[in-house]
Amino acid sequence: MNTSAILGHLDDKFDQSVQHLIEWLRIPSVSTDPTFKPECQRAAQWLADDLNSIGFKAELRDTPGHPVVFAHHPGPVGYQGPHLLFYGHYDVQPPDPLELWESPPFEPTVVDGPHGKRVVARGAVDDKGQVMTFVEACRAWHTKGGGVPCRITCVIEGEEECGSVNMHGFLEDHREDIVGTRAGGSPCDFAVVSDTGMWDINTPAITYSLRGLVYLEVFLHGPSRDLHSGLYGGCVPNPINELARIISLLHDVNRRVTVPGFYDDVLPLTKAERDAWAALEFDEKEFLGEAGLSQGYGEKGYTLLERQWGRPTCDVNGIKGGYTGQGAKTVIASSASAKISFRLVPNQDPKRIVESFRKWINGQLAPGCRVEVVDHGTGRPCLTPMDHPAMSAARAALDEAMGREPVLMRSGGSIPIVEGFKSILGLETLLIGFGLNDDRVHSPNEKFELACFRNGQRSHAALLGRMAELRL
Amino acid sequence: MNTSAILGHLDDKFDQSVQHLIEWLRIPSVSTDPTFKPECQRAAQWLADDLNSIGFKAELRDTPGHPVVFAHHPGPVGYQGPHLLFYGHYDVQPPDPLELWESPPFEPTVVDGPHGKRVVARGAVDDKGQVMTFVEACRAWHTKGGGVPCRITCVIEGEEECGSVNMHGFLEDHREDIVGTRAGGSPCDFAVVSDTGMWDINTPAITYSLRGLVYLEVFLHGPSRDLHSGLYGGCVPNPINELARIISLLHDVNRRVTVPGFYDDVLPLTKAERDAWAALEFDEKEFLGEAGLSQGYGEKGYTLLERQWGRPTCDVNGIKGGYTGQGAKTVIASSASAKISFRLVPNQDPKRIVESFRKWINGQLAPGCRVEVVDHGTGRPCLTPMDHPAMSAARAALDEAMGREPVLMRSGGSIPIVEGFKSILGLETLLIGFGLNDDRVHSPNEKFELACFRNGQRSHAALLGRMAELRL
Repeated sequence: MNTSAILGHLDDKFDQSVQHLIEWLRIPSVSTDPTFKPECQRAAQWLADDLNSIGFKAELRDTPGHPVVFAHHPGPVGYQGPHLLFYGHYDVQPPDPLELWESPPFEPTVVDGPHGKRVVARGAVDDKGQVMTFVEACRAWHTKGGGVPCRITCVIEGEEECGSVNMHGFLEDHREDIVGTRAGGSPCDFAVVSDTGMWDINTPAITYSLRGLVYLEVFLHGPSRDLHSGLYGGCVPNPINELARIISLLHDVNRRVTVPGFYDDVLPLTKAERDAWAALEFDEKEFLGEAGLSQGYGEKGYTLLERQWGRPTCDVNGIKGGYTGQGAKTVIASSASAKISFRLVPNQDPKRIVESFRKWINGQLAPGCRVEVVDHGTGRPCLTPMDHPAMSAARAALDEAMGREPVLMRSGGSIPIVEGFKSILGLETLLIGFGLNDDRVHSPNEKFELACFRNGQRSHAALLGRMAELRL
Repeated sequence: MNTSAILGHLDDKFDQSVQHLIEWLRIPSVSTDPTFKPECQRAAQWLADDLNSIGFKAELRDTPGHPVVFAHHPGPVGYQGPHLLFYGHYDVQPPDPLELWESPPFEPTVVDGPHGKRVVARGAVDDKGQVMTFVEACRAWHTKGGGVPCRITCVIEGEEECGSVNMHGFLEDHREDIVGTRAGGSPCDFAVVSDTGMWDINTPAITYSLRGLVYLEVFLHGPSRDLHSGLYGGCVPNPINELARIISLLHDVNRRVTVPGFYDDVLPLTKAERDAWAALEFDEKEFLGEAGLSQGYGEKGYTLLERQWGRPTCDVNGIKGGYTGQGAKTVIASSASAKISFRLVPNQDPKRIVESFRKWINGQLAPGCRVEVVDHGTGRPCLTPMDHPAMSAARAALDEAMGREPVLMRSGGSIPIVEGFKSILGLETLLIGFGLNDDRVHSPNEKFELACFRNGQRSHAALLGRMAELRL
């Protein structure tokens, strides 16, 4: 069976694949909010059922949090080629603020856009839609090609949006099944992940580096109870003011992070890399304009692309304290909290950053204040070697599927587990994604271009064909 | 009828008066939240009915917000003495955070404490309980003394806890009824307000100065939508970080407010005043300890009492932005907001402070950010002359009721309308209150000591007797 027949089949069945994705998107699998636990279970089971219907042996495997969809396909009888680990996630970000959605986040809607039709829903591109590009490729090989052409293990988790806190443990516990001998007779050779973006709607991309993540929540405590701001104002530490002061101290005037040692392990960008990125002629104006901004703001001495792909950052993702209802309440809150995250680049160590931050913040407290720091999950940055044989196969497959050589890029985002594939399983990862910058990932009105959904399916189908021929 | 018979009657009927107060406290008249509008109306009507039952002519008068309870009593036939304006408020602060209440905020509970019994409920002392000290004194004069001994007009508003935004307009519109000739033939001579505190549980106090208030809400806008912190982190202004930075700039290292011109109109504390306050031997340790703190924190160069009574301050009363649910969400919010209030001292001008703040904050913005400032209400600081004849009468009345000379004090709190009594009606105000520092005003488990409730009733009864004899 040659790949072009599979690609043709994918095109024939494309409308059905969209309806199928929509069915999955209807399940509100918000992993960070315990209210949605049953929905996460339901989304996982939906996918396992689907994989079982196309020749995989799929099941849910428990974790201390949401289950992992674990599926295996041995490939053709007598198969001797590489064994591929496909990773994705079925959980999604919370949809709030709800009032900004133009259609309900869990009632997927197909609308017209400048690039043709798109599906709008929470999880459309991150990551259900991208997982389905792979599943549809497998389905086409199953239906039209008599089965997938190579050996595949799928690990689709349900906690990526809340830091993949249980995935490292899962990989350790299931190491034997993935890279050992039990699952079909040969160890995994590399991982494939579809949770990143294309260069633009016509140009595929392979992402060779991800930023790492440290996500902390800081609770600043002052008085033992809420106080009247008239009686106590100006006499006691105000936890909101103090938290604001501490946050303000996180950056210096050059927008560099001030936590001691923060930059110690940062691998400097090479001249070759900076030149290659400059040659991409990234349109900063368009990128910022799409977010309603006319100019960038960040670390001095770097272009926007360098800041996004190759430099570490710190952002407050949420803050809360005192009276936040309508109107006025003259209160001094007893505490205030902020969710503070750091994006890390190779070779920063999340554990070291957390330690430095804890030490630093304890040195910033006003008299009468104390701080609690809660760790919501960390992920190491990662870097895939350019000369891995699977990299060449993937470049050729993308060219075959889309008629254009992929751009080699980095991403500012984090997929915490990719580093785990390396450290726990010994695998390099190919990040081949089909999102666009304007997909509103994590924002209201998240969407996935159907053109990208189609190209993703075609690319994975071609990739599976190439992988089968690869001899490592 | 002499005053001692009235005081005896109050003591006899005290238990009934507690039950009566409890009935009023059950009505959740939270003025700042539109949900509770019908409850505010109900609380107002309850009071009007009560005043009508004790010889007043009471009615609700409309405002653009919640109604005012307006009541008049001409005093005895042929009365020639002073005409007293009694002001209070029937609205209460929101009860949140609800989970910290030991009994439901609107199910008043009488519990034992170190000073005997106390009633725990939202509004117990601020200000329903204090209003009822006056009403019970009038009831005793009505029942036992054949009617109140002097001419009284009551103005009990429903928006004090949200800045008394309609009270200045109300006073202007009803000026004729209060200080003109229509309401009983003689203009008001001074105002009496019970919304402040005693020096301690055994020592009454007259408050001769209140701080003013400016209460603003700042909305800081950055990107046009929420962004993924991986793709945009470090490349765009983060409204939460920027709001925190701006808040941090509000104070210098000496905890002085940095808004230009903020201190220009501040009346410096005199040596005599500072000496008198020092002589009070205020127990800072106890005051702070009750709030769970071991040391104070505020403007350099001033004692705690000086900071509270005589120095202006700035506090953030609430802050909100980004993801504040459980767990992690890697988002850069499109906006963040903070409720920022200033306490002012004589002779600061709220309008001037608002203008300076608006100008200042517009100069602090990072590229790509814009700010909205919403005014939630302002109140001028006030200062009552020590040599007003009503001041002497009040000092004697408190001594008569409680057997101890009152302390002359200031308050750090604000009652926005007191300045309006001066500027609109030409009246000086006597602030005679019966709260204690540990009453948890605006906090969970707000309470009113029954000993204070009783002494408040006795004091007002004695005050009415003295007022009747006063010839201005």
